[in-house]
Amino acid sequence: MKVTVWNEYRHEKENTTVSDIYPDGIHEAIAGFLREDGHVVQTATLDEPSHGLTDDVLNDTDVLVWWGHKAHDEVSEEIAEKVKQLVLDGMGLIVLHSAHFSKVFKKLMGTTCDLKWREADDKERLWVVDPTHPITEGLGQYIELEKEEMYGEHFDIPVPDELIFVSWFEGGEVFRSGATFKRGNGKIFYFRPGHETYPTYHNEAIQQVIKNAVKWAANTHTPKHMYGNAKPLEQISKK
Amino acid sequence: MKVTVWNEYRHEKENTTVSDIYPDGIHEAIAGFLREDGHVVQTATLDEPSHGLTDDVLNDTDVLVWWGHKAHDEVSEEIAEKVKQLVLDGMGLIVLHSAHFSKVFKKLMGTTCDLKWREADDKERLWVVDPTHPITEGLGQYIELEKEEMYGEHFDIPVPDELIFVSWFEGGEVFRSGATFKRGNGKIFYFRPGHETYPTYHNEAIQQVIKNAVKWAANTHTPKHMYGNAKPLEQISKK
Amino acid sequence: MKVTVWNEYRHEKENTTVSDIYPDGIHEAIAGFLREDGHVVQTATLDEPSHGLTDDVLNDTDVLVWWGHKAHDEVSEEIAEKVKQLVLDGMGLIVLHSAHFSKVFKKLMGTTCDLKWREADDKERLWVVDPTHPITEGLGQYIELEKEEMYGEHFDIPVPDELIFVSWFEGGEVFRSGATFKRGNGKIFYFRPGHETYPTYHNEAIQQVIKNAVKWAANTHTPKHMYGNAKPLEQISKK
Amino acid sequence: MKVTVWNEYRHEKENTTVSDIYPDGIHEAIAGFLREDGHVVQTATLDEPSHGLTDDVLNDTDVLVWWGHKAHDEVSEEIAEKVKQLVLDGMGLIVLHSAHFSKVFKKLMGTTCDLKWREADDKERLWVVDPTHPITEGLGQYIELEKEEMYGEHFDIPVPDELIFVSWFEGGEVFRSGATFKRGNGKIFYFRPGHETYPTYHNEAIQQVIKNAVKWAANTHTPKHMYGNAKPLEQISKK
Repeated sequence: MKVTVWNEYRHEKENTTVSDIYPDGIHEAIAGFLREDGHVVQTATLDEPSHGLTDDVLNDTDVLVWWGHKAHDEVSEEIAEKVKQLVLDGMGLIVLHSAHFSKVFKKLMGTTCDLKWREADDKERLWVVDPTHPITEGLGQYIELEKEEMYGEHFDIPVPDELIFVSWFEGGEVFRSGATFKRGNGKIFYFRPGHETYPTYHNEAIQQVIKNAVKWAANTHTPKHMYGNAKPLEQISKK
Repeated sequence: MKVTVWNEYRHEKENTTVSDIYPDGIHEAIAGFLREDGHVVQTATLDEPSHGLTDDVLNDTDVLVWWGHKAHDEVSEEIAEKVKQLVLDGMGLIVLHSAHFSKVFKKLMGTTCDLKWREADDKERLWVVDPTHPITEGLGQYIELEKEEMYGEHFDIPVPDELIFVSWFEGGEVFRSGATFKRGNGKIFYFRPGHETYPTYHNEAIQQVIKNAVKWAANTHTPKHMYGNAKPLEQISKK
Repeated sequence: MKVTVWNEYRHEKENTTVSDIYPDGIHEAIAGFLREDGHVVQTATLDEPSHGLTDDVLNDTDVLVWWGHKAHDEVSEEIAEKVKQLVLDGMGLIVLHSAHFSKVFKKLMGTTCDLKWREADDKERLWVVDPTHPITEGLGQYIELEKEEMYGEHFDIPVPDELIFVSWFEGGEVFRSGATFKRGNGKIFYFRPGHETYPTYHNEAIQQVIKNAVKWAANTHTPKHMYGNAKPLEQISKK
Repeated sequence: MKVTVWNEYRHEKENTTVSDIYPDGIHEAIAGFLREDGHVVQTATLDEPSHGLTDDVLNDTDVLVWWGHKAHDEVSEEIAEKVKQLVLDGMGLIVLHSAHFSKVFKKLMGTTCDLKWREADDKERLWVVDPTHPITEGLGQYIELEKEEMYGEHFDIPVPDELIFVSWFEGGEVFRSGATFKRGNGKIFYFRPGHETYPTYHNEAIQQVIKNAVKWAANTHTPKHMYGNAKPLEQISKK
């Protein structure tokens, strides 16, 4: 499978706390364990031409993984629209953490995608609430992260097609942390954890979820529908 | 309840077939039976200043009913965005027939909202598939329309929160004809029938559905969430 | 509206901690605030003939509220089946707390309805995750209960039609605490709180939810479908 | 993957119309194309001891396919309960056509599973309404069956987790013909077509759906939850 990992790649250049954790960027950390899983993985970042998302790259992508945080507005409308259309055409999309506020996710959801947040070293525990879903393969009952940014309800998204994880936070909040959405021919998975100042993407259970999600999100030659004016398939009576 | 009925109001001025059926416009036909139901009903149309949707009008609207067809692009981005935000803030929205392609609905859905269509006097039969829903109050097992435009699957919308009607068409197609969507604090109902060249909005069962939907869509003092940075509700341990 | 509150009514007779909180039984505490809301409320308990659920009582019930805990097995198969059928025929059902294991709920869900539990004075905070739902009318962002029994995921229920509350528990768990299910012509609301040793049903926010739920669950003259052999509505071609 | 195909196997012995189409029984027709797909396939039928569903067979089954029609009541309560429990424990279940009334499906759904029906050589056209689902892999926009039994709405099932096919029938009805349900750790797919007097299971598109469904329904080492009394994961304050 061909996977492209997109990263804003700004925090890593500006903050040594982040670059100590992800010396080659969050995108390379994610690309690394996806390559080990057997995928052909490219990376792309905000400050490259076309944000690294040229037509050649996008048309060669089965599943796109997206991490962004502080520079959502710098993603061009044109690229954001193009990515949205490709998802509707069948490209899988994995939306990580603060990418809840990315242009692409907001366009696809139609809502504000707003939430509560706090950077205070909350412990997070992600409980599996859908034990049938392939995205939970190989997991235990929950994933525990010693320290993470808190995201709290209300998370202003459409009702997910499937709710897979619900997070407990030490400071008293809960969050729908893993959720799937079908849009057009595309499958989308939002996964909450991954604040840049914590080593979350080095956690094996978190890696397992992302690996599972990439497999789940890939399109599998499902039907292509025709739209627009359609001839009748049966005779229509004269009335 | 305060209801505003918005109509493109172009077909009625250009086509005598349409104006014979709706001499005062589709908006007045709908406003009429909603007034009989006890609501305070305003109308607004495309060619009025601000498309009739001034802040005064919008802020005085509990539920907005929307009919548009051939001039979706003439609705200003600004008004479309304003209406979208008001829906997210809790205004009910009833989206009728060809308004599946309206800017407001597409922004709220995040998908193309495309479908198959045909103007060929198909018979349509709308089957109730959710017999618990208040929008079906007072109906029989199905609604039959002797002639209507056909809309056929695939209808490119997100999976509805609730599927209420499925249409059978004489020419061989089916369609998810009545569907609800929650977005932010707002409730949305899409209802398929109502091509301008047929007297569909004079049909009592169709009127009943729209009357039911207006009641259902109104916001009922549900919680207002706070978003953004949040203080912990419980003590967070030093780790 | 005609409401019947069913209670096992055993703890109150055997445990003074419980009878101190609910001197007339949990059923009378609930019946009291529902009467104040304008409903005609009957009560029924396990040890009455037919568990108080004679045909006269059941046929005169729009919404049934159910609390049970330690004696689910003493509810007769016949009564449990009768209640299930009435729900499928359109009677509303509010399932409280430990009634997750009641025969009626398990028959309607088809799953084990199992969960994690602990009696350890956990603080519980029920977050509203669906701010459009009439069951949340009049509430704030969450309901806080100083001490409650803990129920934790995985809650082995079908995916709810609507998820309204998610609970945070002090001991580290989360729970889908408010959920709706449509079954046949009936509407069901499961609501988690209400362990017998805590004054939960004296809490005004909890009372508000139950009052809202009773209004929501009542059937509103929705369509009655015919089942079985059906004549064609259109002519079938000879092939 | 280990698949067991269960068939009532009565029509084939009693009616030459049926045995002409399925000389070795419906179970062998289905087993045949599943074997070609690479699975290890067993069959089991009603009149064998334990209906062919001994513990050895069941415990060696990843996915169970079920066809029954006229003798649902002859399936023992014990076997039906055992199969239900195995589904809740993670065995996939494919429920075909008239098995909507099987004990196993009704127990898992909690509803009557009733519907309208007619044996009148209706043409059926199954439209794909979820073009992202792996069960639709390799299909076109719809499947057409020249003659089939009609099943019409209302189909009295819980709201499906996913709606994949909607059927159009020549006589004027529609039906939710392909639907998924998660129950416990198990995945269930209901698929409408397959009346015994038509060669439906010889249709390649129908075979494709059943092959896809078997792959989809298999459990993939998802989490096993613990239920019952649970120690706290965090310290609970003394209040």
